[in-house]
Amino acid sequence: MVTVSSVSTAFASDNAAPTHPRVLQALHDVNVGTAAAYGADAVTERAADALRQAFDAPDAEVLFAFTGTAANIIALASAARPWHEILCSDVAHVLLDEAGGPVRLSGAQLTRLPSDDGLIAPAELDHRLARLGVVHHSQPRIVSITQSTESGRVWTAPAIAGFVDHAHAGGLLVHVDGARIANAIAALDVSPAQAVADADIVTVGGTKNGMLFGDAVLVRRPEHFSGIHFVQKQIGHLASKHRFVAAQFLAMLQDGLWLDTARHANTMAHRLSTGMTGMGLRLASPVEANEVFVHLPADARGPLAQSYAVHQPDPAVPVVRFVCSWSTTESDVDEALATLRPLCKR
Amino acid sequence: MVTVSSVSTAFASDNAAPTHPRVLQALHDVNVGTAAAYGADAVTERAADALRQAFDAPDAEVLFAFTGTAANIIALASAARPWHEILCSDVAHVLLDEAGGPVRLSGAQLTRLPSDDGLIAPAELDHRLARLGVVHHSQPRIVSITQSTESGRVWTAPAIAGFVDHAHAGGLLVHVDGARIANAIAALDVSPAQAVADADIVTVGGTKNGMLFGDAVLVRRPEHFSGIHFVQKQIGHLASKHRFVAAQFLAMLQDGLWLDTARHANTMAHRLSTGMTGMGLRLASPVEANEVFVHLPADARGPLAQSYAVHQPDPAVPVVRFVCSWSTTESDVDEALATLRPLCKR
Amino acid sequence: MVTVSSVSTAFASDNAAPTHPRVLQALHDVNVGTAAAYGADAVTERAADALRQAFDAPDAEVLFAFTGTAANIIALASAARPWHEILCSDVAHVLLDEAGGPVRLSGAQLTRLPSDDGLIAPAELDHRLARLGVVHHSQPRIVSITQSTESGRVWTAPAIAGFVDHAHAGGLLVHVDGARIANAIAALDVSPAQAVADADIVTVGGTKNGMLFGDAVLVRRPEHFSGIHFVQKQIGHLASKHRFVAAQFLAMLQDGLWLDTARHANTMAHRLSTGMTGMGLRLASPVEANEVFVHLPADARGPLAQSYAVHQPDPAVPVVRFVCSWSTTESDVDEALATLRPLCKR
Amino acid sequence: MVTVSSVSTAFASDNAAPTHPRVLQALHDVNVGTAAAYGADAVTERAADALRQAFDAPDAEVLFAFTGTAANIIALASAARPWHEILCSDVAHVLLDEAGGPVRLSGAQLTRLPSDDGLIAPAELDHRLARLGVVHHSQPRIVSITQSTESGRVWTAPAIAGFVDHAHAGGLLVHVDGARIANAIAALDVSPAQAVADADIVTVGGTKNGMLFGDAVLVRRPEHFSGIHFVQKQIGHLASKHRFVAAQFLAMLQDGLWLDTARHANTMAHRLSTGMTGMGLRLASPVEANEVFVHLPADARGPLAQSYAVHQPDPAVPVVRFVCSWSTTESDVDEALATLRPLCKR
Repeated sequence: MVTVSSVSTAFASDNAAPTHPRVLQALHDVNVGTAAAYGADAVTERAADALRQAFDAPDAEVLFAFTGTAANIIALASAARPWHEILCSDVAHVLLDEAGGPVRLSGAQLTRLPSDDGLIAPAELDHRLARLGVVHHSQPRIVSITQSTESGRVWTAPAIAGFVDHAHAGGLLVHVDGARIANAIAALDVSPAQAVADADIVTVGGTKNGMLFGDAVLVRRPEHFSGIHFVQKQIGHLASKHRFVAAQFLAMLQDGLWLDTARHANTMAHRLSTGMTGMGLRLASPVEANEVFVHLPADARGPLAQSYAVHQPDPAVPVVRFVCSWSTTESDVDEALATLRPLCKR
Repeated sequence: MVTVSSVSTAFASDNAAPTHPRVLQALHDVNVGTAAAYGADAVTERAADALRQAFDAPDAEVLFAFTGTAANIIALASAARPWHEILCSDVAHVLLDEAGGPVRLSGAQLTRLPSDDGLIAPAELDHRLARLGVVHHSQPRIVSITQSTESGRVWTAPAIAGFVDHAHAGGLLVHVDGARIANAIAALDVSPAQAVADADIVTVGGTKNGMLFGDAVLVRRPEHFSGIHFVQKQIGHLASKHRFVAAQFLAMLQDGLWLDTARHANTMAHRLSTGMTGMGLRLASPVEANEVFVHLPADARGPLAQSYAVHQPDPAVPVVRFVCSWSTTESDVDEALATLRPLCKR
Repeated sequence: MVTVSSVSTAFASDNAAPTHPRVLQALHDVNVGTAAAYGADAVTERAADALRQAFDAPDAEVLFAFTGTAANIIALASAARPWHEILCSDVAHVLLDEAGGPVRLSGAQLTRLPSDDGLIAPAELDHRLARLGVVHHSQPRIVSITQSTESGRVWTAPAIAGFVDHAHAGGLLVHVDGARIANAIAALDVSPAQAVADADIVTVGGTKNGMLFGDAVLVRRPEHFSGIHFVQKQIGHLASKHRFVAAQFLAMLQDGLWLDTARHANTMAHRLSTGMTGMGLRLASPVEANEVFVHLPADARGPLAQSYAVHQPDPAVPVVRFVCSWSTTESDVDEALATLRPLCKR
Repeated sequence: MVTVSSVSTAFASDNAAPTHPRVLQALHDVNVGTAAAYGADAVTERAADALRQAFDAPDAEVLFAFTGTAANIIALASAARPWHEILCSDVAHVLLDEAGGPVRLSGAQLTRLPSDDGLIAPAELDHRLARLGVVHHSQPRIVSITQSTESGRVWTAPAIAGFVDHAHAGGLLVHVDGARIANAIAALDVSPAQAVADADIVTVGGTKNGMLFGDAVLVRRPEHFSGIHFVQKQIGHLASKHRFVAAQFLAMLQDGLWLDTARHANTMAHRLSTGMTGMGLRLASPVEANEVFVHLPADARGPLAQSYAVHQPDPAVPVVRFVCSWSTTESDVDEALATLRPLCKR
């Protein structure tokens, strides 16, 4: 599939964004001479330290992967054995948009729980936990939640703390898919550690937030993820020229760049959604981070598609998604609103 | 593990090399505005075309992956079902250095065949083929060979053609692990197509040859690799910001840069090995590409390790490996020889 | 866990039943001299023929397995590759009671569809089929339905025919888990072929219906289940002394014994449920085969457990299951009713 | 494949043998009334106790499976995670004759070690152990040996004790594939415990030794095989009507029947091999249990096949296998020798 040039990808995804100039500059800066491969270099050590510091997790292990899908799989497949059950929300990326990778790599059953735009009520875990200890059933082992969620919602600090504690009380591990964790931290205006509460393992997204590629895995309780370095290697995510992944994270973490880019994306989403509701459109979910889900009838979706490539998550539901990124400008937003306005008047 | 700064990684691996300036420049050049994610962009289309053209394979499918390990796994795991047998040499990277990834992802048995430094005699296939059709045995399905081999050898054009034809006659598919395919092409001075003969699927290495990251998969007979795009996605190697993988390949393929860098590495290896034999050292394998395997007694290996990080493939065998890359200079080589000389005189 | 002797297992499961005398006799009859192993014997050939004949499927392949779980896994894991999606009802045995085996062996995602006691509306398939062809999603490949269902319901001949046709129209294969297929056939009073409609593969239960052990797999469209014999072997279900599995099936199929035993079990379930409703109990599902699901408050379940081991499928729902088998007698039923009566009056 | 009636299967395999009458009788004896399913019955408890007692392993866990292949897989797949390496001999059943099942279920790499008819020198382990701790390599975790071996050899008590201790010293677990363990015990005239030394997990064969079906798994160090009950369930080897597996083992273990049947088979193999060498034939391996491997030229193999179905393990090697069982008679042996004699004279 090749995108026709006249259709804008400006709001198609934060994956459509370019790379932040400071990230590209960092690649240049480390491109000097030879360096030990596979992460045994000084840049990698510094990047891992910076991530540990950012999350106030001095004893965490840090691994890097090329993509968020890989980071999630590395986390889940090292936690779950093939007789385990992995729990997630009904809109989870690990359930819907990773082509079954988490199941394939873990061999474990993946069970969706009902949710409010990806926010799961703690009590939803109890029904699954009742199956523990019976040889006929898959055994619940880990629950994966997303911060901010795939529907653009944010777990508040108390909400995620309460959820994680409830899961832990039931003997479950907790994974946070943080492909857009910076957007959540910026939105909540709390520390990174508060945004993930006491989760055992966290995917820290970099790609969507301004890097070329790269998501990290922060392993706070390594004793439950033995073999995780082998999983990373086995799916080809132990970078040989490792300094080039690490240098990007260093650039993002320096002087809070990662939160600045995320905050900007959130602000743009707010501007966009405000403009939409102002013209009478109805949001499908509250806009709490950098994604806007809006109801749009078929007779508007058609003409819109002439101008903008946007994602419709469910073919049966007349809702489309606009995603803002670090590179979205106010004029990008205003242009989109100007395009939408005549479509909605009809 | 952190490398002590006074130890040089100059010959540790071609993975220790930096990125070629033209590759970094290409990243800058495509970093303009938003672009469709996941490969639906124009840069990706051009890179795939360039690769098809280079290998004279107009109908091939092209996929990109972040690492050579991933590219190999994507190829093998889409060919082999869990009751199949994958064949390879006794020094194959897929057997020894991918932490079991090809087995994990395919579920298939991986069987090593005896080889001459990675060069397998066609007749070695026959014994395995005798097991076809019996339900008690894993069924031979695909053989993986490496060009140039992990021991620095090169299949000649007639040799690889003969091998592939023999495999095909027996009903086997053939995979070429081309992590160092450019070194083989440069060494043979044949076309890329001749260097891989009629192989069904080829991993085309980029990382070791000057890129930041990135290996491609050239699928010449897609009908035998159904689902390959899903495998790529499932292990997190469908890049979201895909243009940044593709742009690197475009840069390498333009004006034959990939063969220039490879030829240079080969030349440096030749210079190094000639120097070594000149000082009385014995090579463990003929030097045909960019790797030098040399016998070195323990009393020389110890002092060498003070100056150079080099790989000893088998702890029980007194042989070490020196790898040259696009960035190795004549003075790098001469310096290494100068370091070795006093050690060998003892 | 050891059952205390004073608690009856009479209604715990059809798996609690003994072996039918004609089955044991058949074991004796074939226990003469040596015979070719692994199914290459004459008894196996006759049993496979008998099964083909019973289902009016002259071209079907027939495999035998030791258990119903294995038969289901052999069917599903040979149909689905790791990027496929397997669909089933929300009460399916393959989802809830096989410890994740179908997922482990296929690597595929297993998705539950809402159902009426295991009866799935054809339209439920459409939502999943909308995801076909997109590399980010698992690809729907096969739907598994159960006849009679895990909740004791029976698909009528028109209903199952309509469902299978709808699935086929969408490109899906259809598996029938027939662990209790004989109960359905007997209840419907149709031919075996009508009871499974145009399904592509059928598990034919033997164990619950009077055998020691043994379920068969009837493969009507072998082209979609390539490698099925290897899957059977790989999970240890290619019996070495194969005649002893086959002989049991021959005994059951001879003179319609399998339908007689099933019909008897159904009749006993009818007697039991009629007695229950007569004493004011409320059934949780219509009783259409050999299982009775009945609402029973906690203050009745406690005392009942002193006398009868019965299964409560969901700890959160006050419903217990009584299963009748070929060996259940009228006095067994009446005794159970006599035990229940005083409990329900309270 | 159907065996033509005039060809005898008398020496084709111990799997060709019928069931011992005392085993069939035991099935009748337990076929009374209903019983708790899935192993929660009294017969199962007694059988497990009898097995623990036989092997002097009061704290071992005991599981039953329908086949030896399944028992091996249950043991290996619960020990090895997908980044582990399983070691075995170059003639191992788990390597050659289980269609890749152990690899499929564990996801682990299976590596063959050179052996003397299945007897592995302890030093062969050292080379693999040198790879421990490096993320690029599969990690050696468990070694599987066979007692008696697939080539009809027996590990002496000191030999197996030395091997197991060496493996343990290197951090490896040890599995004994005891499909023919009774033949080894009878041959050695030692206790069962001595015949398996300090192995961590043992497959105890029943099928080949007189049962209809059934092999047990004796888990002596359950802490290294967590999840083993789930693996058993996931591949369909948790028998629902469990008493019928257990009762067979009880019958075999009672009054030492299992060793009597094995000793008889060994004696018959000795008679057969003595007769063969007496007529000038050359044995391919020493006959130490119930299997005879004998060199036989092509012009004798052809005529022999008219009378006897015997296995030729390697099409390229002119050796055929005769297997004796509990049911082999002296006249069976003498008849075979009479058939061979004229063929060998040519």
